[in-house]
Amino acid sequence: MPTNGARPKLRDHRSVGVVKRQIAHIDQPLPLRSGATLESFTLAYETYGSLNAERSNAILICHALSGDAHVAGYYTDDPDERPGWWDEAVGPGKMFDTNRFFIICSNVIGGCQGSTGPSSPAPDGKPYGSRFPLVTIEDMVRAQTHLIDLLGIERLFAVAGGSMGAMQALQWSVDYPARVRTVLFLAATPRSSTQNIAFNEIGRQAIYADPRWNGGDYYDGEAPVGGLAVARMIGHITYMSEHSLETKFARRLQNHTELPYQLVKPEYQVESYLQYQGEKFVQRFDANSYLVITKALDYFDISEGHPSLQAALEPAQASFLIVSFSSDWLYTAEQGLDLATALEGLNRDVKYHLIHADFGHDSFLVEVELMTNLVGGYLDTMWTQYQSERDAQVRRTQGG
Amino acid sequence: MPTNGARPKLRDHRSVGVVKRQIAHIDQPLPLRSGATLESFTLAYETYGSLNAERSNAILICHALSGDAHVAGYYTDDPDERPGWWDEAVGPGKMFDTNRFFIICSNVIGGCQGSTGPSSPAPDGKPYGSRFPLVTIEDMVRAQTHLIDLLGIERLFAVAGGSMGAMQALQWSVDYPARVRTVLFLAATPRSSTQNIAFNEIGRQAIYADPRWNGGDYYDGEAPVGGLAVARMIGHITYMSEHSLETKFARRLQNHTELPYQLVKPEYQVESYLQYQGEKFVQRFDANSYLVITKALDYFDISEGHPSLQAALEPAQASFLIVSFSSDWLYTAEQGLDLATALEGLNRDVKYHLIHADFGHDSFLVEVELMTNLVGGYLDTMWTQYQSERDAQVRRTQGG
Repeated sequence: MPTNGARPKLRDHRSVGVVKRQIAHIDQPLPLRSGATLESFTLAYETYGSLNAERSNAILICHALSGDAHVAGYYTDDPDERPGWWDEAVGPGKMFDTNRFFIICSNVIGGCQGSTGPSSPAPDGKPYGSRFPLVTIEDMVRAQTHLIDLLGIERLFAVAGGSMGAMQALQWSVDYPARVRTVLFLAATPRSSTQNIAFNEIGRQAIYADPRWNGGDYYDGEAPVGGLAVARMIGHITYMSEHSLETKFARRLQNHTELPYQLVKPEYQVESYLQYQGEKFVQRFDANSYLVITKALDYFDISEGHPSLQAALEPAQASFLIVSFSSDWLYTAEQGLDLATALEGLNRDVKYHLIHADFGHDSFLVEVELMTNLVGGYLDTMWTQYQSERDAQVRRTQGG
Repeated sequence: MPTNGARPKLRDHRSVGVVKRQIAHIDQPLPLRSGATLESFTLAYETYGSLNAERSNAILICHALSGDAHVAGYYTDDPDERPGWWDEAVGPGKMFDTNRFFIICSNVIGGCQGSTGPSSPAPDGKPYGSRFPLVTIEDMVRAQTHLIDLLGIERLFAVAGGSMGAMQALQWSVDYPARVRTVLFLAATPRSSTQNIAFNEIGRQAIYADPRWNGGDYYDGEAPVGGLAVARMIGHITYMSEHSLETKFARRLQNHTELPYQLVKPEYQVESYLQYQGEKFVQRFDANSYLVITKALDYFDISEGHPSLQAALEPAQASFLIVSFSSDWLYTAEQGLDLATALEGLNRDVKYHLIHADFGHDSFLVEVELMTNLVGGYLDTMWTQYQSERDAQVRRTQGG
């Protein structure tokens, strides 16, 4: 997914400002779907806005494959620092309005941005490396429940996310139905398709093929950055539509007026762009985390073990906003619609929107204005509805 | 592209039978688009059927990225040998009917199946390796004209191909309009798109990232088979549709009833399939040839240097059959239609067919029955038309 564009020199007055990454040490075992257990674990998280007295205004944002807990704001006063990955969406008056809501985001289990993952120290003090167990979306969500407990929140007003973040949101609604009022499910699928698995597997193969990977134990030597860069490029191309690639680069040459007929060095702008994406990614991401998280994506099929998708969703009680993007060929409109149809079959409160957007899967990060109206408006409505229900409840209680 | 399925134990009575790869040594310089020159070169080729006395029944089939000159038949009597890559389409009574036509196919310049490429000896006797110049579709076609000259053929009845083979056929019609009566342009594009370039570039990056590649000079050591396997997997997934992947593999596990939660070894069938495709490919293909040929694909834009596609096609005089496949997302129906529209704008004789097929880009190899009716029928019609024109010509000459 793209990072945000260059930050305006004058900081957006609607920024959440300077924020701090926090760490929750959970000294309880986390049993995993695979049968393995993490004896204790750490979650890195950030929060924006304030939790109200009733503890009813919390929204958990779940991040995608390459994301982290740093959704919004800045760590320093450095004017060249880029803000968090969804800064345009989170802040006072924004899509996720921090004047009203208390926003939480934590780095997933298996990640490499402060939560326990393959690069973290195992109980013996050395990095887990190849010893880190594979995890599922279910496991990521179970880990998050400990953080929500720590924050003293019984019920989340919403769980929201795009891509893998949406998978976590859906999993929350099925596994912890009493703890989620609303699910915002953006640009995602209730079931990774064969093609989804295939693309992820090729990325993993690129990492395995890098001799520096060394079966996952490379933390005392060189990291497999060559393989990880290729994996990132493969992922990246699935986030963009054919149309957005044409619009952005067409067949334009990179720093040449005539084809140089050369290997390795980029000839076309799109080649330079992909190489840059690869190089940038390896500076901030761990190859083993990429393996673990893509596996979690592939394992995701909310209907697994159930006769149908509808049967699998039976426990879910939340209201759902499901948004697909017309040019998203990674997680298609059809996949989003499958989820909406199954929830409608259960008479759940569900709204499905197909947004006509040209940027492929990345649209959920790029089309902020459209999303602000749609998602922000939906949150408004749901919040008003929640408040009047609560007021009626209070009146009934007082009257009784 | 897939190889054919297991061969029936009793050989197809319509097989061209046991065939022989032939070698043409061309002792003339081949000037290349890049400005470099091959001082002499070799083309490996095969032929099936017989050239008629008038030398008017020759069809040149051009192969795709991973193909070679061995289109049909067998090299030995070994009952386990697989036939050529388009055996179902070439033989007595088949789509390309060897009872009527003389079929020629040669391995492209830059390839690794007998024609001059990076693994061939340079004039100094050592493999070219990194010294091999990059080539274009135009260069491949220019090399083929020498072979057609050697065979004593003035004018080809048809030039045919799928994918990169179709690009060569189109290039023939523009560069040598007097030498081509008919073009069969299947599952291809007149211009590689940004997304086409991007996928090829990622495959190349996987090869560059393999330390064994060594800048292209690896012929006295280990080949970069790890990188090449990943490149092949990336290519392979673009040849299949999401639907064909779902139909073939869905989310079925490989040799397990429950998820083993493991890295490296395949968990899902589609992973095993991709790994197999990679392993099989590196046994028969050279990594440098993969680089050179994907570059040729990326360079392909028949309209380059012209104000429009239509202007670029002005020289072409052939009749065209253009076939796209509905589920082909590598070379889309829209791209085929662009070519058809431009040719119609020039009042050329052009037929465009969109075949509704589920197998993605590979459909042109898989949907043999449909193709036999369409392509075989078209060749029938064109042949009959050619013969009556020729008879009329003879009558006019005799009458005059």
